[in-house]
Amino acid sequence: MTAVVHQPADFNELPAHVWPRTARREEDGMVTIGCVSLSSLATEYGTPLFVVDEEDFRSRCRDMAQAFGGGEFVHYASKAFLTTTIARWVDEEGLNLDVASLGELQVALAAGFPAERITCHGNNKSPEFLRTILTEGVGHVVIDCHQELELLDLMAARENVVQEVMVRVTPGIEAHTHEFIATSHEDQKFGFSLATGSAHQAALAAVRAENLKLVGLHCHVGSQVFDADGFSLAAERVLGLWGKLREEILDINPAAVEDLQILDLGGGFGIAYTEDEKPLDVASVATDMISRVQAYASSLGLHPPKVMVEPGRAIAGPSTVTVYEVGNTKDVTISDKAARRYISVDGGISDNIRPSLYQAEYDVRLVNRTSEQPLLQSRVVGSHCESGDILIHDRLMPGDIGAGDLVALPATGAYCYGMSSRYNHMMRPAIVSVRGGQSRLMVRRETIADVLALEVGND
Amino acid sequence: MTAVVHQPADFNELPAHVWPRTARREEDGMVTIGCVSLSSLATEYGTPLFVVDEEDFRSRCRDMAQAFGGGEFVHYASKAFLTTTIARWVDEEGLNLDVASLGELQVALAAGFPAERITCHGNNKSPEFLRTILTEGVGHVVIDCHQELELLDLMAARENVVQEVMVRVTPGIEAHTHEFIATSHEDQKFGFSLATGSAHQAALAAVRAENLKLVGLHCHVGSQVFDADGFSLAAERVLGLWGKLREEILDINPAAVEDLQILDLGGGFGIAYTEDEKPLDVASVATDMISRVQAYASSLGLHPPKVMVEPGRAIAGPSTVTVYEVGNTKDVTISDKAARRYISVDGGISDNIRPSLYQAEYDVRLVNRTSEQPLLQSRVVGSHCESGDILIHDRLMPGDIGAGDLVALPATGAYCYGMSSRYNHMMRPAIVSVRGGQSRLMVRRETIADVLALEVGND
Repeated sequence: MTAVVHQPADFNELPAHVWPRTARREEDGMVTIGCVSLSSLATEYGTPLFVVDEEDFRSRCRDMAQAFGGGEFVHYASKAFLTTTIARWVDEEGLNLDVASLGELQVALAAGFPAERITCHGNNKSPEFLRTILTEGVGHVVIDCHQELELLDLMAARENVVQEVMVRVTPGIEAHTHEFIATSHEDQKFGFSLATGSAHQAALAAVRAENLKLVGLHCHVGSQVFDADGFSLAAERVLGLWGKLREEILDINPAAVEDLQILDLGGGFGIAYTEDEKPLDVASVATDMISRVQAYASSLGLHPPKVMVEPGRAIAGPSTVTVYEVGNTKDVTISDKAARRYISVDGGISDNIRPSLYQAEYDVRLVNRTSEQPLLQSRVVGSHCESGDILIHDRLMPGDIGAGDLVALPATGAYCYGMSSRYNHMMRPAIVSVRGGQSRLMVRRETIADVLALEVGND
Repeated sequence: MTAVVHQPADFNELPAHVWPRTARREEDGMVTIGCVSLSSLATEYGTPLFVVDEEDFRSRCRDMAQAFGGGEFVHYASKAFLTTTIARWVDEEGLNLDVASLGELQVALAAGFPAERITCHGNNKSPEFLRTILTEGVGHVVIDCHQELELLDLMAARENVVQEVMVRVTPGIEAHTHEFIATSHEDQKFGFSLATGSAHQAALAAVRAENLKLVGLHCHVGSQVFDADGFSLAAERVLGLWGKLREEILDINPAAVEDLQILDLGGGFGIAYTEDEKPLDVASVATDMISRVQAYASSLGLHPPKVMVEPGRAIAGPSTVTVYEVGNTKDVTISDKAARRYISVDGGISDNIRPSLYQAEYDVRLVNRTSEQPLLQSRVVGSHCESGDILIHDRLMPGDIGAGDLVALPATGAYCYGMSSRYNHMMRPAIVSVRGGQSRLMVRRETIADVLALEVGND
């Protein structure tokens, strides 16, 4: 629990680097996104409501594509936020797609996303997932363990196909925000260790496997990263292996040496969640990453690899806001000198578990009107039967916020709907997209009928 | 992240105080619950799978009823785990039911649970929830804030009914395990403060409200509580208010003084999650609580109140195990001297977020066979694309566990399925109940069709 209280410069102003690109406070005090007022959306679709700014999402796809030299170098990490509509947007903007489970692959395929532009991740891919990958002609598989490598080779042989694969390497770099930690060992479930030689063995095994084609090495350094340092150091470590491998592949199968082209540096590009956080400068980080990788490759006498990245949050996160209706407020005395206003809204940890799970902080604004009232130390809580059901821990907010007001949290596009639950049998919200004055329901609100439809023991 | 490694006395033995009451390791090495082998259930229903021991659940209902003097004094807190089948079991065992949302109320009503034996909680009950409460004739409403009190009174007048209510009091007692903290202020969203006089005002307002009848005072002290101290101290503080109120009610409305009968001390009764934790002695804690409350009431010259409690976890938690299939294993060097075996299973934080959210620890056993292999330092992880997707942090487990083996975590009945998500589009598991050699599907596994059915933007 943080004790920091953010003092908003002006509570009525929407920090542009946190809110969706088309979000505006209009002259009548209402907030619009894509020229549609959040109040009208709340009336039409109910609350809580996820509102996705289509233009924001698409423009961030284009920014990433431009920064990294083309959409083919950018895989949208669908674990952040995936619906069939979103998969289609990603396709239309020319990006590739990452999936991390059979379910994500099925949604992508249902959206008509071309299988050959999909890359599959996962530390524990089931035989059914691997079979679907092979039969659907999925582009790349990121191999995560020896059993998977052997099984995929065997299954590819049975299907009479050669599957392009990357090997996931853990290079001992853990990046967070503007710092990184370089270690020799990584205590995590993903990938093959660079330090122990396990990654080296796996890559050679992939080259030797008759029905696999090694096209790249993959690594991932962390989350909420804002500069190139962690990526670059990881890339240098992986390129050391890359150089060795090329020489060995020449011995094993000279024809295969040109297959190894991709250096996939994973995702983790940060976004600003609160007013005082700085946004990621995608273009400059990309330029920095790529030039450092190329310089290092060149110093090793290597042809420059194709650098690929996997942004999820950095594309989906800022595109979306969650709109809640305020139910009631309560002033609680928290010490002899201080009080806190609790503002209860009609959602909570079921639609956004990140504050509880990661101590994540969010911005919040009143969106159906402005307020000039004095600000009070406030906490925004959900409606769940759990005292930890807190969306905003400490925030100065206008003292006149009350029942029927609408508040919205921006930057809820990533890992909110995706991790949402039906805790307390509160139904998952609807998702609506907005653009150019039009709204469109993307995912409908769940109902009690959806819950009861799963119950089969009722005879 | 804990560094403690539990050394199992015998990995093949099921600690009886953690596993469901009918769980057995059979002579062929397989684990059965309700005389049904978990292997056969995995084959029939797939994995991950929640397996509920009906006899365990029902017998814990009976234990609670006996300990507290009758089922009418025990409200099963449905937020822990609720399906229509479970609501029916609770009904058949004669317990009352707590719900904390409109959705929970709808499930209970769909199960045919008598409305008059339901109590409704919630810090932010919507007008629709309140309307349903009134029209369905729900027994009790626990009032949580002034706006709710006024709105409920108004709506009850419109419906021409008198609604029985309790007032939720925050007495400044926070109980955890075998300790409690007594404070004057509680910084939380629920209830009315005893210290500030807010609870007193609310209770008087409820007495004065024409369409409300104040029948009790409610408080809740915490989670995972194993003795009577916290409950008793909270009860003493609340009884202080109770005594004052009785005198004032005599002035306001003498006929109403006998309406105030219930002292609801909430839930929070603990369970053992791991071998080294002790189980709750329900009977002795109940006896201790009730005798201390009665003695204190008597010392104040008060008639003994009806003591009610709201166990959820203590009934549902131990009844259920989650069965997973192992996919692969990986040995990771974590320092120059140590390695860790990662055992990947086909579920994870989507079906059990408690290890990530609360650093909760669980027991785990191999259930399709025994093993006499040496034990290795192991970590059980899920299949999600998230390094924090860990079910068991550190545990010595047999070195021969591998693909196709079944492992099960006991004590997953509370807050696992209820908080489950579809993160990474991994589908929520099925729930099956077992009893006397028979299994019965309670909730079917979700499918990709369930996901796509919510997507309406596909024209």
